[in-house]
Amino acid sequence: MTQLTQVSAWKSFGGTLSVYDHESPLLGCTMRFAVYVPPQAAHGPVPVLWYLSGLTCTWANMMEKSGVQEHAARHGLIIIAPDTSPRGEHVPNDDAYDLGQGAGFYLTATQEPWAKNYKMDQYITDELPALIAANVPSADMSRQGIFGHSMGGHGAITLHLKNQGTYKSCSAFSPITSPCRVPWGEKAFTAYLGPLSVAWEQYDATELVKERQSKALILIDTGTADSFLETQLKPEIFIKACEKDGQRLDYRLREGYGHDYYFIATFMDEHIAHHAKALKG
Amino acid sequence: MTQLTQVSAWKSFGGTLSVYDHESPLLGCTMRFAVYVPPQAAHGPVPVLWYLSGLTCTWANMMEKSGVQEHAARHGLIIIAPDTSPRGEHVPNDDAYDLGQGAGFYLTATQEPWAKNYKMDQYITDELPALIAANVPSADMSRQGIFGHSMGGHGAITLHLKNQGTYKSCSAFSPITSPCRVPWGEKAFTAYLGPLSVAWEQYDATELVKERQSKALILIDTGTADSFLETQLKPEIFIKACEKDGQRLDYRLREGYGHDYYFIATFMDEHIAHHAKALKG
Repeated sequence: MTQLTQVSAWKSFGGTLSVYDHESPLLGCTMRFAVYVPPQAAHGPVPVLWYLSGLTCTWANMMEKSGVQEHAARHGLIIIAPDTSPRGEHVPNDDAYDLGQGAGFYLTATQEPWAKNYKMDQYITDELPALIAANVPSADMSRQGIFGHSMGGHGAITLHLKNQGTYKSCSAFSPITSPCRVPWGEKAFTAYLGPLSVAWEQYDATELVKERQSKALILIDTGTADSFLETQLKPEIFIKACEKDGQRLDYRLREGYGHDYYFIATFMDEHIAHHAKALKG
Repeated sequence: MTQLTQVSAWKSFGGTLSVYDHESPLLGCTMRFAVYVPPQAAHGPVPVLWYLSGLTCTWANMMEKSGVQEHAARHGLIIIAPDTSPRGEHVPNDDAYDLGQGAGFYLTATQEPWAKNYKMDQYITDELPALIAANVPSADMSRQGIFGHSMGGHGAITLHLKNQGTYKSCSAFSPITSPCRVPWGEKAFTAYLGPLSVAWEQYDATELVKERQSKALILIDTGTADSFLETQLKPEIFIKACEKDGQRLDYRLREGYGHDYYFIATFMDEHIAHHAKALKG
């Protein structure tokens, strides 16, 4: 069994936020993630909520800036924040912020030079959960939810739709909704998956929802002042697909908010309550 | 009148967080600060609460990591986070993290090379409030409070004790309590003020409280796992002085918490409530 090496730990809202490193045989590199364990975990297993970050981010953005601990401590949820890609000097990279390290897009790359290391969907759904199950005894792996931001909001929706038995709840802040149809996605999918093909559809939330609606109510918040709203996020594409194909969706456009963690922090309480209701109800 | 140049603005918890640059004739450099204006400010003047950061920090640490906006929005307080020193390539500096830029100690330096620029107490109490009064119409300058962290927690206590008519409420996270008696303070005061003398006492909270008790209840939170507790903070010195000299003090030692913003965020709600009660009661 792969070991976890503790990098840091802090007490926060009565619980503990820990950062760990571990060797990832799947990704071929050392990976770092953070886990917040709420005070309720001292008394028995609690649900697990995964948070997938956006382009350029690590575990730190959400744990430092979203205020999630306050709400996780109130509702009694473990929060896990993985990194957004494989990392390391030997891991293929690109100078652009939206490709390579920090931009894994939660998929399994088939193209060179990415195919060896870039398997973030498998990392999130298989390798890291096994480590959590083995090392965090208070994690109730039968009650898991998933959410995220931007690239990670899209990742959360796709992993939820493809693994509905695993992730019983889903929400997103400012998600990309159809990478096949926007510049960020077209660039990354071309690099990781090759020219446009049916292979792209399995990683596109709007395509997936046509085939694999979930029973869950998906909650999404996006700000009207988000500078990526009209070019990269395009919520109307996903809203239409959900309406047409019978996916329950609570899509909220928030007047005046941006793409940042001040926006995320403002509505974090509602997202945590959404997951707590589904995972503890 | 000096002009403010807006650097950034974000909507947050119904209010607006803005970052501004301005020329500081007093400090001889360009200064940057942040101000959070809560939603209540749309309906009339609201109290102003100043937050002084610790060593190495800027406006960003508290605005990004403390979760203050949630509580300021609930209670209706403007929050202002200044920088911790003068800044710029032409401003004297030191390679150490605890002297020079990022380490202004909220005092007026008398020694070279610091004397020209390092006047952070005057900046906080005079120059910046005048800019706020002129540029933030919803700021009720007749109702101001002050708090801070570490070096800034100490700064908040000293500026409160010396300006009781200005700052009607005071609190601190993990403050230095007597810089005359700890390595951080001895190093900085020697550099900024020269060898130990009576000049040091006017900037030492424990010395000040012997002469200038305030009518306010000073609230302080410090974590027992704070790695600076026994070497730099030494709360027992200040607690004894307050007991002896009749300063009302609510000093809370928090089991297991550190010197970090996870600790600050955990107890931010209580500090904001403390100030709101004093400023709005």
